[in-house]
Amino acid sequence: MPKRPLILISNDDGVQAQGIRELTAMMCRLGDVVVVAPDGPRSAASCCISPLTAITIKLLKEQEGLSVYQCSGTPTDCVKLALDGLLTRMPDLMVSGINHGDNTSVSIHYSGTVGAALEACMKSVPAIAYSLRTRKQECDFHPYEEVIMSTARYVLEHGLPQDVLLNVNFPLVEELKGTRVCRMGRGRWIKEMLEVTDGRYPEGERAFRLTGFFLDLEKNAEDTDNWALANGFAAITPIGLDMTAHGVINIIDNI
Amino acid sequence: MPKRPLILISNDDGVQAQGIRELTAMMCRLGDVVVVAPDGPRSAASCCISPLTAITIKLLKEQEGLSVYQCSGTPTDCVKLALDGLLTRMPDLMVSGINHGDNTSVSIHYSGTVGAALEACMKSVPAIAYSLRTRKQECDFHPYEEVIMSTARYVLEHGLPQDVLLNVNFPLVEELKGTRVCRMGRGRWIKEMLEVTDGRYPEGERAFRLTGFFLDLEKNAEDTDNWALANGFAAITPIGLDMTAHGVINIIDNI
Repeated sequence: MPKRPLILISNDDGVQAQGIRELTAMMCRLGDVVVVAPDGPRSAASCCISPLTAITIKLLKEQEGLSVYQCSGTPTDCVKLALDGLLTRMPDLMVSGINHGDNTSVSIHYSGTVGAALEACMKSVPAIAYSLRTRKQECDFHPYEEVIMSTARYVLEHGLPQDVLLNVNFPLVEELKGTRVCRMGRGRWIKEMLEVTDGRYPEGERAFRLTGFFLDLEKNAEDTDNWALANGFAAITPIGLDMTAHGVINIIDNI
Repeated sequence: MPKRPLILISNDDGVQAQGIRELTAMMCRLGDVVVVAPDGPRSAASCCISPLTAITIKLLKEQEGLSVYQCSGTPTDCVKLALDGLLTRMPDLMVSGINHGDNTSVSIHYSGTVGAALEACMKSVPAIAYSLRTRKQECDFHPYEEVIMSTARYVLEHGLPQDVLLNVNFPLVEELKGTRVCRMGRGRWIKEMLEVTDGRYPEGERAFRLTGFFLDLEKNAEDTDNWALANGFAAITPIGLDMTAHGVINIIDNI
């Protein structure tokens, strides 16, 4: 009998989040699963790592085909630790999420969910990040199960091109209209800083809180991740490790 | 007389680091300067932001043509705060660094120096990240002054293509051999986790520290950032906001 695939799972909402628990239940149907996830929320952790502090891990659960660890570090720390300290062989697949909140357009840069998948991708482990456009902590993930299972099965069977991961985003719907392979849409966050004026800060200091609105700069572009979500589709966006803006190398060559 | 350009500066080594002080002195020759930088080291902060805590700022210095603020947040928080809370107009240029440590290849993803420049780029502010391959806290930055001034002048005069920033890295040399416009080389960090075995951790927990070696996967590719540094050149790499792996969209379209 062929060996069952080994699947590594992480996220940025923390090991107790509903999204990672549901994703774990799904992945257990496809292989042996190891979860290494932060001990609490690390939203917007991007690819942040912890070079200055010790990173601790603790085994929470161990049963046939499933081990669950919580980790004091960032999502990226979790993946580094799994691949370089914990696992005895490289996983066949790494999945991240399901994030409570979508990771489309420029938000991909801030995302700890995508950050964890990028880390696996850097180590040549095929990786998928899953995110749901919602602010709720408890959601019905059933409408997304079919796409999650089929994309995970696809990647287990075919792998992914070198230095590429899949970023999968879902709209909050009762039934998906289907899936779209997308590009990252152009957009930006605006009005992001709200001054805190309750006077609890020392003289000479000002304090702000992050807030803001996302401005979609190409609302009618049907090939973007945001268009897919706004129109009821799951968005599947291939993300590359290589951030070089190859198209402009010749333009700036006279610098 | 034309208005002097407005230049925003940040970094991830903190407002007191030598690199940002030297960069500030250089930029003051080109325009009015506002520094908004973290109150201490935030190495490897990537594009991490602080949605869960208040972000405080404090004016450290104000003189003709120069204001310096320290901020409790990440490099990305600093840039968001500057652009959306502090500055009365958008800057003509944003520069980040000079980082003590290079940011090439996959390390670009972890870099708070590049993260700060990415944030400016997202808001259509032309941005340049400067980093020096060194582990020293005090260095001689004179060998890099000419390239820093000429790239900053170039960007002030010509701008940059939409959604592109420049990532400039220097080798530790007495004299540069010149500059190379590069792509991000392929590589990976290995042996990154060192287990801490001094026994101060609770039963059932293990602790690790980040460490590691960088493995250059294309040592002989003369168009990469790492080749440039290894051979005495400054590496100028255009980095794009768009992380879509456009080349594989058709390949995965049957998913």
